[in-house]
Amino acid sequence: MDCSVAQCLEVVGEWWSMLIIRDIFMGVTRFEDFQRRLGISRNILRDRLNSLVNTGVLVRVPYSEHPPRDDYKLTQKGRDLWPILTTMRQWGDTYAAPSGPPIELTHTWCGKTTHVEMVCDECGERVTSRDVKAVVGPGRDRKTLLPSKG
Amino acid sequence: MDCSVAQCLEVVGEWWSMLIIRDIFMGVTRFEDFQRRLGISRNILRDRLNSLVNTGVLVRVPYSEHPPRDDYKLTQKGRDLWPILTTMRQWGDTYAAPSGPPIELTHTWCGKTTHVEMVCDECGERVTSRDVKAVVGPGRDRKTLLPSKG
Repeated sequence: MDCSVAQCLEVVGEWWSMLIIRDIFMGVTRFEDFQRRLGISRNILRDRLNSLVNTGVLVRVPYSEHPPRDDYKLTQKGRDLWPILTTMRQWGDTYAAPSGPPIELTHTWCGKTTHVEMVCDECGERVTSRDVKAVVGPGRDRKTLLPSKG
Repeated sequence: MDCSVAQCLEVVGEWWSMLIIRDIFMGVTRFEDFQRRLGISRNILRDRLNSLVNTGVLVRVPYSEHPPRDDYKLTQKGRDLWPILTTMRQWGDTYAAPSGPPIELTHTWCGKTTHVEMVCDECGERVTSRDVKAVVGPGRDRKTLLPSKG
């Protein structure tokens, strides 16, 4: 499917993978800690970590030789998932957190509790779904965005 | 799990659901059009649409009485998924679109091809994963963010 959303879903559409990535952004790096926090079976956790390493989202960094043990760290490709994680968190805070946000983010630059907003990288103005028009890009293999209505 | 990311994954972590939402943002509203565009089985499509209606992301708006037919439209809760969809698209464009972005967004305000950036709603400065610190929020049922390293 020639769609970047679908490509991204290969990574973030897998429930445990996104929660592992969330935990790494919180500072968790080790198998045992993921396992304890997520309550996930060891087989599934191993499988998901392997998959995230294979897709280049995580790298293994050895911290012990005997026994062999690794920290899991984000690559740049992995760190670039942060905007997705953050917009997901904010949506969940709005629609599925009746007692308030479980976690809040402090912006170290200004010291305040922050909610991110999306702005255009060209003009700096806010962007919402109503402010954009989708057009065919260079990577499209078909030249229409919509099916004919027959 | 008292995590807004996990709550959001209930919706966006389901592969077909997010592609249906993507299509609605492109202007698709009808069962037959989703089915043709996605190549999804009718049973699964019906199931996913029902689920998105039940979670309040979509509403049915009848456009025909005989036979009974509905358009599917986004609610506010559904439109608020746009930042997630857009950050997912941008990540996929960067890491999984070797021929370039299949779709580009024009910002109607400035007329340019736009990529969204995330800024702090308090100070207006750019925010990345390195500029924030996670703190316990009011909705947290445990008071630690990380496991003790024991």
